[in-house]
Amino acid sequence: MKLVTIEINKEEKAAALVNEEYVIDLQEAGKAYNVDYRFPRTMLEAIDDGENFLAEAEKIAASAHNHLDASYVYPLSSMEITLKAPIPVPRKNIICAGKNYADHAMEMGSAADIPDHPIIFTKSPTTVIGPEEPIDPHTDVTDALDYEGEIAVIIGKTGKGIKAEEAEDYIFGCTLLNDVTARDLQTRHKQFFLGKSLDTFCPMGPAIVPVKHWKGKTMSLKTLVNDEIRQETTTDKMIFSISQLIEVISRGMTLEPGDIIATGTPAGVGKGFNPPKYLNDGDEVVVQSVGIGQLKNTVNKK
Amino acid sequence: MKLVTIEINKEEKAAALVNEEYVIDLQEAGKAYNVDYRFPRTMLEAIDDGENFLAEAEKIAASAHNHLDASYVYPLSSMEITLKAPIPVPRKNIICAGKNYADHAMEMGSAADIPDHPIIFTKSPTTVIGPEEPIDPHTDVTDALDYEGEIAVIIGKTGKGIKAEEAEDYIFGCTLLNDVTARDLQTRHKQFFLGKSLDTFCPMGPAIVPVKHWKGKTMSLKTLVNDEIRQETTTDKMIFSISQLIEVISRGMTLEPGDIIATGTPAGVGKGFNPPKYLNDGDEVVVQSVGIGQLKNTVNKK
Repeated sequence: MKLVTIEINKEEKAAALVNEEYVIDLQEAGKAYNVDYRFPRTMLEAIDDGENFLAEAEKIAASAHNHLDASYVYPLSSMEITLKAPIPVPRKNIICAGKNYADHAMEMGSAADIPDHPIIFTKSPTTVIGPEEPIDPHTDVTDALDYEGEIAVIIGKTGKGIKAEEAEDYIFGCTLLNDVTARDLQTRHKQFFLGKSLDTFCPMGPAIVPVKHWKGKTMSLKTLVNDEIRQETTTDKMIFSISQLIEVISRGMTLEPGDIIATGTPAGVGKGFNPPKYLNDGDEVVVQSVGIGQLKNTVNKK
Repeated sequence: MKLVTIEINKEEKAAALVNEEYVIDLQEAGKAYNVDYRFPRTMLEAIDDGENFLAEAEKIAASAHNHLDASYVYPLSSMEITLKAPIPVPRKNIICAGKNYADHAMEMGSAADIPDHPIIFTKSPTTVIGPEEPIDPHTDVTDALDYEGEIAVIIGKTGKGIKAEEAEDYIFGCTLLNDVTARDLQTRHKQFFLGKSLDTFCPMGPAIVPVKHWKGKTMSLKTLVNDEIRQETTTDKMIFSISQLIEVISRGMTLEPGDIIATGTPAGVGKGFNPPKYLNDGDEVVVQSVGIGQLKNTVNKK
C-alpha cells in the first residue's frame, strides 16, 4: 500500500493506492467498514496519527480486492479523482540537502565542492505542485530553468537530537520530488532560497511509501527529460545517508510530523552539461524510483 | 493601537495593546460590545481578515479608556496574561534578508560582501519564541552564539510580482525580532539555514504595529547586550528598502498573509568585534525600536 492525496468533489483527502491500480478514499471506506478508527481527512492529519493511521489503512487496503465496486474505490484513471502532491501545503518550508552526491557536487564546480558537512537550505511551501501539474518556466524572471530529481523523506514523529541509528523510527515514508531551480537566481542571490522557491518549483509525488517497505534498502533514482535519461543513481551513493541527514538536521532543531527533507540530487542536472541543457517550454520531466513510482510534469507557460 | 498575542487560560489569542498599558482580549470585547464583527481568535486569522479586523480592533481600542475595569481588559503587567510572539507558529519559514546594511556586510568580511542583490534565506518556524522567553545557547552544538536585532514586516495580502511602489499595500504591520545565529554552524554548513534554525533562535515581538502608523517613516533600531549598546541604526540605511525587498522576493514567489520578512541587521553583531563578543549563559539581549517597543530575552541554559 502507498498513500496519496486525491482531490475528489473539490476536497483534498488522504487515500490509499493499492497495486498501482485502485485508490481508496480511506475516510469513506472507514465509515463503510464501520471501524472504530476515525480516519483523518488530510495527509498531514494522517501523518500526525502515524502508526495508528498506517495500521488501519493497511487493513482496509488488504481487503480492498473484495470491494472493488464499492463507492469509495476508484480506478487510478478515474476522472472523478485527481492526484495531488501527497502534502499539498506543507506546514513549513521543505528542507533540502544540497550537493549530497559527489558526482553532482563535481559537475557544479570541482572536487572542492564535495561538502564535508551537509549543506541545508529550504524551498517555500508555495512551490509545491502535484503529478502532471505544469511547471511555470517564469521566463520573465529566469533564463536558466533546471531540474533536480530527488528522493524526499517525510518525518512522522517529533524529535530532536535524533541519532542516525534510530533515525528511521522518525520517518513516516518517502516520496519523489523535483527540486526545480532557477540557476541564475540561485547564483545572483548567493543563498539558494529564492532561486529554489518560485511558484510551481516543487513537483512532489505521486505517492508516499511507508518507511517499513523500504527501510534498510537501497533505492534507485532516475530523471528523464523528454524520455532522455539525464540522472541515474542509487541512494547508497549519497554522501550523507538519510539517517545521517536526520541526525545533523535535528541536532538543535526539532523535527515535526509532516516535515519534508529532500535528500539531494545526483549528477546530470541541466547546468552540468556543456552547453547547459536547461528546461524549455513544453519539456516533460519525469522523476522515477522503483518502488516509489514516477512523477511527471511538463513545463508549461500559461 | 498595537497588536499582541496573549496566552490567557492556556489559550493563545489576538489582543490589542493600548498606550503600552492595557491589553484588550478582542474576542471577549467584541462579544461584550455586541458588535456585528466576529473577532478571530488567533493573530494569523486576524491577519487573514486584514483591514476588516484592523478597523474593528481600532474601534474597540479607541473606547477602551471607558471600560478599564471590564473583564476583557488587563493591565499589561497582569499575571493572568502572558505575551507570546505575535505569531507563535508561523505557517512557513521566516524569510530573512542577509547583509542588508552596508556596515554589517563589511564587519562580516569586507566591502566585497556588500550585496548587489538581496541575499535571502530562511529560519524554521520552530525557532520562534516570545518576549522574555529564554534563548537556549545550545552549548552542545555551538560555541559562537550571536544576536542580530532586526525589524520584521508581516505580509497582509496575497501577492506576486508586487512593485516596490505598491509594496506597502501588502504589509499588515511590523514587529521586532532577534535573528539568533550559531556562527560556526552558519559557516560549516555553507547555506545559512541550519545555523539560523536552532530551537529558540527567533525571539519575536513584543507587538505588531499596523502599517498605517509607520509607512513612509524612518524607523530606529537598537540592540543592547547586558545594557551595552551593540547595534544602532535607522531603516533608511538599509541597502534594499522594505519595499524593494518585497518586490524582489515576490517576483516569482507568491507572498501570503502571515508571511514574515526579517529585513536585516546592522553592524555590531558579536562576530563583528575583535575578539568576537558572542553570547553567554545569562546574557540579556534587548532589541528596541521607538514606536515598536522592546524585545527582551535572556540566554538561559535549561
